Amino acid sequence: MSELRKDPISGRWMITATRNETDTPSGFITVRKEERERDCPFCEGRELETPPEVFALRKEGSKPNTPGWAVRVIASKYGVVALNEELERKGVGDFFFFDTMNGYGIHEIVIESPLHITHISELPLEQIRKSFLVYQNRLRELKKNLLLKYGLVFGNQGYGKEISMLHVHSQIIALPLIPKSIKDELSSAKSYYEEKERCIFCDIIKQELYSQERIVNAGDRYIVLAPFASRFPFETQILPRKHECDFTNVPEDGLWELAEIFKSTIMKTVKLLNDPPLNFVLHTVPFMVPEAGFWLTIRDDYHWHIEILPHAMPARGFEWGGDFYINPPSPEAAARFLREAEEK
Amino acid sequence: MSELRKDPISGRWMITATRNETDTPSGFITVRKEERERDCPFCEGRELETPPEVFALRKEGSKPNTPGWAVRVIASKYGVVALNEELERKGVGDFFFFDTMNGYGIHEIVIESPLHITHISELPLEQIRKSFLVYQNRLRELKKNLLLKYGLVFGNQGYGKEISMLHVHSQIIALPLIPKSIKDELSSAKSYYEEKERCIFCDIIKQELYSQERIVNAGDRYIVLAPFASRFPFETQILPRKHECDFTNVPEDGLWELAEIFKSTIMKTVKLLNDPPLNFVLHTVPFMVPEAGFWLTIRDDYHWHIEILPHAMPARGFEWGGDFYINPPSPEAAARFLREAEEK
Repeated sequence: MSELRKDPISGRWMITATRNETDTPSGFITVRKEERERDCPFCEGRELETPPEVFALRKEGSKPNTPGWAVRVIASKYGVVALNEELERKGVGDFFFFDTMNGYGIHEIVIESPLHITHISELPLEQIRKSFLVYQNRLRELKKNLLLKYGLVFGNQGYGKEISMLHVHSQIIALPLIPKSIKDELSSAKSYYEEKERCIFCDIIKQELYSQERIVNAGDRYIVLAPFASRFPFETQILPRKHECDFTNVPEDGLWELAEIFKSTIMKTVKLLNDPPLNFVLHTVPFMVPEAGFWLTIRDDYHWHIEILPHAMPARGFEWGGDFYINPPSPEAAARFLREAEEK
Repeated sequence: MSELRKDPISGRWMITATRNETDTPSGFITVRKEERERDCPFCEGRELETPPEVFALRKEGSKPNTPGWAVRVIASKYGVVALNEELERKGVGDFFFFDTMNGYGIHEIVIESPLHITHISELPLEQIRKSFLVYQNRLRELKKNLLLKYGLVFGNQGYGKEISMLHVHSQIIALPLIPKSIKDELSSAKSYYEEKERCIFCDIIKQELYSQERIVNAGDRYIVLAPFASRFPFETQILPRKHECDFTNVPEDGLWELAEIFKSTIMKTVKLLNDPPLNFVLHTVPFMVPEAGFWLTIRDDYHWHIEILPHAMPARGFEWGGDFYINPPSPEAAARFLREAEEK
């Protein structure tokens, strides 16, 4: 069983898998290689070769774990957390110095196409829209478990078949804690709101629309921008123009434009940077937050968004040691290139 | 000129280089390739082909920028910051919404051997000890510039010749701000100290020496441990056993054991993980900290240490989006493998 551990200094939690303790060091690091492009259990017709489905958008009348689906959610075969025990919070060491929880949580895979598509930029718009619908659906469902505090939705592209299935998919990890980067955003947005009674993201959007310098795309409902202090070259964010804290509240008809703008941003990024490894992460509100003994949902002081992070430059090491980034192109230049780029 | 920019939400600063605005996107990303292994300006005898030296440990009587040095410090040819202007803090956008500074600072390269050694694990002990001496010397010197708040010392190994010179070297970046990861550590250590009148790092050392589970090496003056919530497989930290906040206060005779324990940890890591890319970062106190209008140095509530971060597993993307890490081997297993490993 895996374990959640908190670093006492940074406050960052991580997951350690305590299985395979007797393996060789390289055994920890070499990840599964058994899946081959030609032999893909994520393809339609191979449903019985994956863990059972927990949700799917399917043709009316088709049965779970059979063909007929458009987007299919399964438990991860290599899940880093699971629900098969009670949540146990535990201090370890003398005087319970270190904080841990057992590896309680949910790790799901969202298979975003029944066909063997291997690049996210090749997903049809309709499949992207349906995947967003599925994220909403899963987040709403996972939220019902009151022990879970956050559902992190993310997708990776181009990290190679040694660490990931090639068939397009994204992942949802729901945990009894809020990841540090989200917690930092929430706390910063909260103090801004308390001081000004305004959402910091809304102010950023207003500022960026006014200057136009870092705007990549501006639709009716969403804008795409290159963040003012981007960590990576050609990093972008998609935000709803109107204040909205919770991604699951986006009405179904709002997902069309989101799918369009998402696909277009991905395609331009892929084209400009010559198909770099990239990932995207959905930042939305936690399921519930504790407030003076009550559990509240957040309404006014957060603003959901999607981060798209290409990794065209190899990491150079110091990012890890200082949480400090050197990003050669200015976000203004990145935005200009992206605005002017044709889609792939 | 480059620019320092603060992300308004995370509080993280980054450096953007605003030159080359008219380049192609790939121009931003492809880094210098002109240096070749056989043609190395970092080697002894090629001193005039580098930027002028700012400091060197040299044979008595030998002149700057000539042979006869053991460790040599030069300004980075590709420096991301420079001192050639005044420090200018500036809000940009309407109502000065975004915080910036111009790219004020110092970026130096510490060439750690006059011979063409290309792997940090092959550096002789004496050269490692001398490099530590040089870090101390440079940090003491840079501290005299009261506009600079932090000097980050770090080294990278194995990231490939496309992004780095092969000849062993480390880097010092001194800036008018404190990197976020250090700031987070300082603030966490400070609140712990205020509550308990004890250093959190000292308590961690005590706990780890008691349990022994995550101890990799314990010398007279230093210990090496696998942090309880390690982000990366086989990540380690070297800490002085006795409380010491400032690396520049380590007496010269204390650097021998540090060099030994550093070299041994690097060699074991390289051997166990089959020569992974790795980097190390020195975390020490800021030059000065503001406190109620005064500038103070920190004494009791920080503890310098060196982080050694191997990157044997490729990044999988979600680390960037959630500041959340999944690290398969437990730190206890990593510590055991490292304890038992022979040096390369």
